[in-house]
Parts: sequence; C-alpha cells; structure tokens
Amino acid sequence: MKILIQNATILTMNEKNELLLAQSIATEDDKIVYIGEVPDSFQPDKVFDGLNKVVMPGLINAHTHIGMSLFRSYADELPLWEWLSEKIWPIEENLTYEDVYWGSMLSIIEMLQSGITCFNDMYFFMEETAKAAEKAGIRARLARGVTGQDASDNWKLDESQQLFHKWQQKADGRITIMLGPHAPYTCSPEFLLKTMQRAKNLNVGLHIHLSESKKEVEDSFSAYGLSPVAQLEQLGLFALPTIAAHCVHLSDEDMEILAKHQVSVVNNPGSNLKLGNGFAPVEKLLAKGVNVALGTDGSSSNNNLNMFEEINLAALINKGANGDPLSIPAITALEMATKNGAKALGMEDEIGSLEIGKKADLIMLDFNKPHLYPKFNIISSLAYSAQASDVETVIINGKIVMEEREIKHLDLAEVFAKVQSSATRLISTQKH
Amino acid sequence: MKILIQNATILTMNEKNELLLAQSIATEDDKIVYIGEVPDSFQPDKVFDGLNKVVMPGLINAHTHIGMSLFRSYADELPLWEWLSEKIWPIEENLTYEDVYWGSMLSIIEMLQSGITCFNDMYFFMEETAKAAEKAGIRARLARGVTGQDASDNWKLDESQQLFHKWQQKADGRITIMLGPHAPYTCSPEFLLKTMQRAKNLNVGLHIHLSESKKEVEDSFSAYGLSPVAQLEQLGLFALPTIAAHCVHLSDEDMEILAKHQVSVVNNPGSNLKLGNGFAPVEKLLAKGVNVALGTDGSSSNNNLNMFEEINLAALINKGANGDPLSIPAITALEMATKNGAKALGMEDEIGSLEIGKKADLIMLDFNKPHLYPKFNIISSLAYSAQASDVETVIINGKIVMEEREIKHLDLAEVFAKVQSSATRLISTQKH
Repeated sequence: MKILIQNATILTMNEKNELLLAQSIATEDDKIVYIGEVPDSFQPDKVFDGLNKVVMPGLINAHTHIGMSLFRSYADELPLWEWLSEKIWPIEENLTYEDVYWGSMLSIIEMLQSGITCFNDMYFFMEETAKAAEKAGIRARLARGVTGQDASDNWKLDESQQLFHKWQQKADGRITIMLGPHAPYTCSPEFLLKTMQRAKNLNVGLHIHLSESKKEVEDSFSAYGLSPVAQLEQLGLFALPTIAAHCVHLSDEDMEILAKHQVSVVNNPGSNLKLGNGFAPVEKLLAKGVNVALGTDGSSSNNNLNMFEEINLAALINKGANGDPLSIPAITALEMATKNGAKALGMEDEIGSLEIGKKADLIMLDFNKPHLYPKFNIISSLAYSAQASDVETVIINGKIVMEEREIKHLDLAEVFAKVQSSATRLISTQKH
Repeated sequence: MKILIQNATILTMNEKNELLLAQSIATEDDKIVYIGEVPDSFQPDKVFDGLNKVVMPGLINAHTHIGMSLFRSYADELPLWEWLSEKIWPIEENLTYEDVYWGSMLSIIEMLQSGITCFNDMYFFMEETAKAAEKAGIRARLARGVTGQDASDNWKLDESQQLFHKWQQKADGRITIMLGPHAPYTCSPEFLLKTMQRAKNLNVGLHIHLSESKKEVEDSFSAYGLSPVAQLEQLGLFALPTIAAHCVHLSDEDMEILAKHQVSVVNNPGSNLKLGNGFAPVEKLLAKGVNVALGTDGSSSNNNLNMFEEINLAALINKGANGDPLSIPAITALEMATKNGAKALGMEDEIGSLEIGKKADLIMLDFNKPHLYPKFNIISSLAYSAQASDVETVIINGKIVMEEREIKHLDLAEVFAKVQSSATRLISTQKH
C-alpha cells in the first residue's frame, strides 16, 4: 500500500530532531519512501490532508505488562511489595490463556488510541499477547516473565524458548522476542546465570526490573553486600543487551555501571509515583550517557497506558524534583518516547524516527484543538499540552491501523465485554 | 429547562462521597431537584441515557489566568522570575481588550471540554473575561489582578471596584467578583492595606499568590524578617476570606497560620513542577485542617487547563514526594477538584457536590473507553485513568453547555483564528 500525507507539520525525531512545516511524507509497503518533497510519479492508494495536523514517529512504550489491564483499579494505593505479594500474585494464579488474550487486546486498543505503535512487554501466557498483537497490527517485543530459584523452575525458560521459536520475526516481522528475568529479587543468581545462558544460545537480550524500590536496594545489600545493579554486573548479566526497567534508586556508581555496559534504562514515572517509589535520576543518567527510554508499566500501577501522560510527567517531574525548570526539556521527553525506545530495543535503524528507508510507523495528531492554540512551539505543545485523544491516525508497518480514531478491524465492544467478564471472575475467586 | 439523566453511575461528592449505581438525577431551571429516584410526575424536556456513563459535579478550577492562553508554548523552560519579568510582563504591555477576550474564550472552550464548570481567575482586562464567561455559559469568579507600591497605583483598585459594580451576580448569578492583589512580592504593605480596605467596603474576599517559589520566601525574610505567610498575617490580611494560590514553600508555622485563619490554599501541581518550584505539602496542609483546592494556573506555565491532569498529578506526585503510596488517595484528589474548590470560593452551599437544591453544575463522562475497563473502582478510574476527552456532556446552571463534546453556541473556528492572530501580533512586537 502507498500512503501520502500532504501539507503536514512533521516532527522527524531524526538526529537533529528536524521539524518540517507544510511538507509531505510518503510510505510504500512497510517503509517510509519520501519525506519533504514527493515526486509526482508517486501514485498513492490513500492520501491524507495534513493541514492542522502533526506527524511524528509512533511512540514506543518501552516497559509494560499489557495483560495486567485486567487488574486496573482493582488494588490501588498500596506499597510495591504488598501490592505484588498480597494482591497481584494471588490473583495471577487464576489467570487463564483467554484472560490474557482479552486483557492484551484491551491494552493494545488503548495503546493504539494514544499513539503507541510498539511496546516492550514482560508477562506470561505471552503467546496470547503475541496473537493479539498479530491481529491488531501493532509492533511488539515480547518476553515471558520468569522468576526462579533452582532447576525446578526450568519450565519457564523452556516456555520462553518455545515462544522464541514460534514467534520470533513473525507477523510480517512485527513480533520479536527476548528473555524476561523478572528482577534480581525474584530470581536467584543461579537462575539468572541459567537465563543468561539461554539468552546467549538464542542470541537475544534481556528485559528485567531493576532498583525499583528502596526496599529492593536494601534487601540486595543485606543478601549480597551489593546494590542490585552491582550484583547483576558481578554476575556478568550486562554482557547481554539489557533493558532495565525503573532504575529509581541508583548511586552514582550504579549509574556508571549502567553507562559502561550500555544498559538501556526505561523510566516509568507514573508507576514510580503511584507506588510511592519516587523519582528516577533521569537527568543524571542522561548526563552519564545512559540511553533512557520511557514506559507506562502495567496499567494496574499507573493506571493507564498513555505515553502522552508519561511524556508530560517526564518533562514535569524532573523539573520539580530537581528544582530546575530546565531539567528534561520537552524535546528530551519526546526523544525518550521515540528514538531512545528504539535504541533500547536495538531497533534504532528501523523505528523511532521518520527517515527514508525506516519502517512506516507513524502517528498523526489533530492540532485543531483549543489546548493546542496558539501554535508557537510544536515540540512544547506535544510534551506539555497534547493529549492521547489528539492522536487521530496510526500507521504501523505501512498499514493504517487507526483512522479518525476508528480501529475498524477490531470489535471493541466484544473486547470490553470479555475483559469485564474475565476481570469479574478473577476478582470473585479472590475474595473467597 | 428540565433535564433527566437515567441509569447512570453518580459520584455525588456529598459529605460521604456517596457513589450511586444505576440511578437517576434530574435538574429544573438552575437547580438539582432529584437524585436517585425521580418521580413519574417529573416531565423532562431532555433525557440522557446514563448507561456506561459517570455523572459527577463539574470541576472547579480554583486558580487560573485564562487570558494567558495567548502565551501558551511561547516561553517555556524558564525559572518563575525570569519567565515573568523577561517574557510575560513585557508582552503583556501590548495586550489589548480584544486579545484578552479571545484568549479567555479559547480557555473557556478548553475548560468546558475538560469538564470545568467554574473557574477562579486573576488577570486584567477582566471585563473581557466576564463577557466571554457570560456568553459561553460557564461560572466564574473574577478578580482584576492588582500590583502596586503607592497611591499612583490606585487606578487598578478603581478598576476592580468598577468590575464589581458592573458584574457582581450578573449572567444569571454565574459571575462573582473578588479583589486580586497579585502577591506579597509585587504589592507593598501599604498597597495591600488599601486593597484590604476596598475589599471590606465591597464585602468580598481576596485572591493572592503566596509562597510560590523559594526565592519569594528568601526575599520576604530579607525584606520583612518574616515568611510571606507570616507577613500577610501581621498585616491582618487573613481577616478577609482569602484564597492563596500555590503555597509550595511553607514552614509548619506557616501552615498553622493558614489553618487558624481558614485561608483556602489552591494547589497547582502542574505549574509548580513546570517552573521548577517543587511540591506543595498538600498532605500536611490537609492534616492541619487547611482547605486545599486544585487549580491549573495559567496555561502558559502548565501548559493546559486540564483539571483531570491536575487531579492525576495531585494523586500521583504526593505519593512520589512523600515516598508513600497512601498519600493523597484518589478520593482526596477528587475532593480537591470539586467541593474543596467550592469551599474556597465560599460557595459550598451552591456547588461542588451533587445534592438536591444545589446548582445544576454537573458533567457526564463516557466510560465506554478502553482505559476505563474493567470497571471495578470508579473513584480510582476517575483519578488515575480518566482523561479530559472522556467528558461528553457539561451542564452549568441547569443549561446544556456541551453535548457529545459539541459546544454549539460558540464558533470554535473563529476563536482559534482570532487567538492565533492576536498571539502572532503580540510575539512579533516583542521580538523588536
């Protein structure tokens, strides 16, 4: 399919973050083929008028657990450990494949409606998430979350391996797989070493939670005499490409370790605030050369999958926490949500910016809204004023997935009903 | 007009914050006449189906400067003093009556679209803001912002007095007036005493900025040997009903002074973060019995007038700043945005909750959205998941002001064009 968007404001997020005014962008099959001038010989199947619209790269949600939307608003206002151990883990015992399929589909619809074209997920029953992503047309990096102490937990790694063999590069290449050791506090060193070996064999990277809460750091010092970051370095884990989610409680040494090993950090401001974990040192991490991407975390600790909210939070809370109105300017927050996410996934040559030859993953926002006037500074408007609901059109891998906010190939009413029914069943089993 | 909403989820925000499921609410003229059961004898002119909808009191934006939307995204990422003195004040020199009318209208449209039914404004050319509020159908408390050192500034107080005589209780009683001394650092003690005298004569309260930045507090100690709060107490200012915006940098003594004099504080989390001013001690203020309302501040330091974003920020950032996931639960943030705002305005008997006999100021949200499933906890969903764009219908003073997100009595395209033209002219004069 050939798509042409004419006369639009285009935020490329290329190396110079170039902003083009009243320009065109064209896609053919799964790629971007022209930006700026489009030759008359290009014969589009579909033309969009870009007047009053802003086109930018699709947002990359670099850390989430989309199946967990089933638990949204079920157990709020609890500390991380109590929330996980008393509320979430017990209810997850009763999850079925079907539950995770519908929870994943709900989340994908929400993500598409807020301009997310790619997500990096860690959960279980991941084949259901893969099926939902395949059907919905979104790009996904999937890791079966694994926790383990000894050899009896090997089946989770076997499942991860099966997921890889079945889904790697499937759905027109939109789905890719990595391994997902949950966290240093839920995986023994022996289990992590095993996981690392499997990842090496499959030639994939790791997605892990790291230094999320103060308690995690204190427990790590008690158990190992080391911070969680230092403990993983000692294990040699960072020799593998690693995406470390959260990284709230870091020493300067921890940050230097992350920089040295080119670990990508995913900042999850909404979740870190809601669970009372605090403020990640985003400015310091970036200053030390660490690649910092942005994610929503699961919607049971956020409580939504809205990257425009996370961009806004990243741009605002670092200013507040550092007492500095220059901390994390608008453009940096937008970089975190686009090209830094692509880099975290090792996909910086394919997605994260609008450049000729890259995948056609892009979104178009309607700027004819009261909160987006007057039009002075598009980058400021995107970070400080725009809302998820301003996203009008979503194109992924060259296909129109949402147009005028409609997702025509999915039955939203069915998804909402299935989710409500799954969630009600799960909660009712829990109360007895 | 008689309006009936049937079969809705109704969050009353009454004293017990009662949530009613599958109930009705009816309004007649400017009042709420039934909640729960509506007798068959009630013959509505208009019926809304409340299935999958949530009805709640209209939101009260308790501190803003709506004319300033003209400068949205013009001068971001600057400290408060530099932003005000180098960017905002110089450009305000060139403002005309017409500019403020269109800026106000833009802001009112944005506020209606995000469920705000009443706003508390401080700015100048306030008659234009009054005209816009009258036409748009929103409820407004207006104060002409005054700054002054000596008798030569009396004309600003004269203007305030004229505004009162012309607009107090006008537009079906939707418009009320108070006095607006800008801040202790822009008004001399002599000028504040004069302002207080005028307020006493008119029998109105005061709207003032207070303890917004660290610099303000330091400067106050240098000038008076007192904190800004203690200085105003010493002047006797708090003998008048006072709405104090910001109150970020407070000592325990300051908080006790505010509690003792029943000063209402307006928390503006978005603006305080963006200007790098930090985190107001909301939890402590509430614990000391201070009434804390919520506001957006002007959209040039936010950058929007979205109370759902402020509710979300209030519920999230206090948890992060206090390292406590129980800090400012969802219901408290919703109280701040509704009945606490009403109390700040001295209108708690008229607005801020859905109760029989109160003004019919209410909003209806569409909960048939992916980010609002599953439906477990409506209060959590409103604070943590809902978006301004979920607001579908707005009723103010018993009149339908927005329906299905359409504001039929205003010409949005004209407003957008006028704002863009005003803003462009203002900025161009500034650059030379």
